[in-house]
Amino acid sequence: MKKHNFNAGPSILADEVIENAAKAVLDFNGSGLSVLSISHRSKEFDAVMEEADRLFRELLAIPDNYRIVYLGGGASTLFYEVAANFLGRKAGYVNTGVWSKKAIKEAKRYGEVEVVASSEDRNFTYIPKGFAVPADLDYLHITSNNTIYGTEYHEDISSPVPLIADMSSDILSRPVDVSKYAMIYGGAQKNLAPAGVAFAIIREDMLDRIVRDLPTMVSFRTHVENNSMFNTPPVFPIYVLMETLRWLKSIGGVGEIFRRNREKAALLYDEIDRNPLFRGTVEKEDRSLMNICFVMADGYEELAPEFMEAAKARGIVGIKGHRLVGGFRASCYNALPAESVRVLVECMQEFAAKHAK
Amino acid sequence: MKKHNFNAGPSILADEVIENAAKAVLDFNGSGLSVLSISHRSKEFDAVMEEADRLFRELLAIPDNYRIVYLGGGASTLFYEVAANFLGRKAGYVNTGVWSKKAIKEAKRYGEVEVVASSEDRNFTYIPKGFAVPADLDYLHITSNNTIYGTEYHEDISSPVPLIADMSSDILSRPVDVSKYAMIYGGAQKNLAPAGVAFAIIREDMLDRIVRDLPTMVSFRTHVENNSMFNTPPVFPIYVLMETLRWLKSIGGVGEIFRRNREKAALLYDEIDRNPLFRGTVEKEDRSLMNICFVMADGYEELAPEFMEAAKARGIVGIKGHRLVGGFRASCYNALPAESVRVLVECMQEFAAKHAK
Repeated sequence: MKKHNFNAGPSILADEVIENAAKAVLDFNGSGLSVLSISHRSKEFDAVMEEADRLFRELLAIPDNYRIVYLGGGASTLFYEVAANFLGRKAGYVNTGVWSKKAIKEAKRYGEVEVVASSEDRNFTYIPKGFAVPADLDYLHITSNNTIYGTEYHEDISSPVPLIADMSSDILSRPVDVSKYAMIYGGAQKNLAPAGVAFAIIREDMLDRIVRDLPTMVSFRTHVENNSMFNTPPVFPIYVLMETLRWLKSIGGVGEIFRRNREKAALLYDEIDRNPLFRGTVEKEDRSLMNICFVMADGYEELAPEFMEAAKARGIVGIKGHRLVGGFRASCYNALPAESVRVLVECMQEFAAKHAK
Repeated sequence: MKKHNFNAGPSILADEVIENAAKAVLDFNGSGLSVLSISHRSKEFDAVMEEADRLFRELLAIPDNYRIVYLGGGASTLFYEVAANFLGRKAGYVNTGVWSKKAIKEAKRYGEVEVVASSEDRNFTYIPKGFAVPADLDYLHITSNNTIYGTEYHEDISSPVPLIADMSSDILSRPVDVSKYAMIYGGAQKNLAPAGVAFAIIREDMLDRIVRDLPTMVSFRTHVENNSMFNTPPVFPIYVLMETLRWLKSIGGVGEIFRRNREKAALLYDEIDRNPLFRGTVEKEDRSLMNICFVMADGYEELAPEFMEAAKARGIVGIKGHRLVGGFRASCYNALPAESVRVLVECMQEFAAKHAK
């Protein structure tokens, strides 16, 4: 049976990316070698790195004064590395959920953390807005999309201090004004690649703001100056990332994927709002296009296991909500086809026809 | 043309590992999902982690009081992490080349480093022996195999203080008495997996010797207590590692691979010693089974580029020596077939027949 992969991450990649990856595992570009067995110093991999850089810049309109690096590990490692590099005295963090809190926890070892805004008062069901950002902060950190709670910033905020965003789960899902950010980073295992590589887009002047002497691998300067090749980078995850960028370009780039993402999300949120058995958990204006959270409506709570079974019977995978929210979470990343959303919507409609009181 | 892959790393993996990996990229165990798109919290990946753990323990005879963890990044990250976790006052390092020096450099930020032995006096062409290890060290660190210089410890040394070994490039190539080590770690991109995952085998009592409060991702306790699942681990590299362990077991385990490795190395070293055009660069007793370094003999230096061409014409890949040694380096990792070594030996013989004075 065809599977509809709503996994929150690692998550769905485009079919042609998967097919090309499988071919490259057997023989990379007719080299007679597996992409798993080529040297990271080979001309074949140089070409991958160059193409990834070029496509990433083109797709996200990244200005020339930014550098893209690829790192082993994921966003969890970057939580402390961001602070180790840039937090000298005090940094500001917006607390929009679990991932923000983790970033805050790691940052506190390096200096003072001011939580300039938080949505914890209502279980992170909205994105704080209109908050003041003190001008004396080393940087302001936000989590642009919150996978667990299903909230997302829908515009690039302005900040009087360097703005650093964890975009692990919505990178390349919508156009971004990169020039508003000093650094954008994330784990790549949602919209970009399989698990095993993180990315960072760093404005060059930030390298002069590194506030302390650091272990070689922790300093962003190391990775920028060595083009992510100070040590052996995660070759295969980076190769798949490049294939994903190729795919994204081939379908029309970020403008087109944003259109598709809005269309998919509208399809599902409309059903959540219309269907008497379900309700959304997030303020409408802050609803994530990537992670769509919903629960059984009041009076229907006990039907949740049966709905999970009904979804499973249709090949729907990965919609169990995070334990902190409960219910369901349909992650609709870039590569998820609209058809998968339609199958889920049909499943909800059929379920309502059977059970609505 | 069939390629003979002597790359120093990332390096050759067994054919059946490559084939299974390609299949799993398309459809993992009939799940209808790519191994690149499964959740790290899925039962499918739990099974991978469990099998990897079981096989690693069985193949290397790892005692029950050791824990195996998988980490993003590679050995370069572990250089500072080892010291951050365990270097309180003073640690001992044996300096056997570039990788040892990098480990020493990172360690110095955390405390005093005593270089208890070094082979730098003769360009790292041997392994120091019979050195005294002070009893007051937090630990003693060695690099068990030196990829660049082609030297290797052929027995497990005894240490009065916790012994920590970087075994990036010879893990599972020979039997090891794990009980002599407090920790064995390395990047996995030689004998175990594609690039993108590091491993650490840690004796449990070492967790009580962590000397400082650390960022969550830096503390080995985090990864041990969370079974390498505190954050999203590099799923695909770990899966391929598990396939490699399966393959190693299927051919007879570490005893058999050690026999094959000695046989391959003997074939090539014998040719180096016999052939008038080439000479080895390392003390015979310390020659690595994994990375076989040789240069043109005196008087034949100018033939090096021609030999590289002759080798290339036979499909031989990756034998250019590191710039610090020059000449050639044939990396003969576990998965390299004896046939590839025979092709290289034939090439050397033919070259000598053509050029010997």
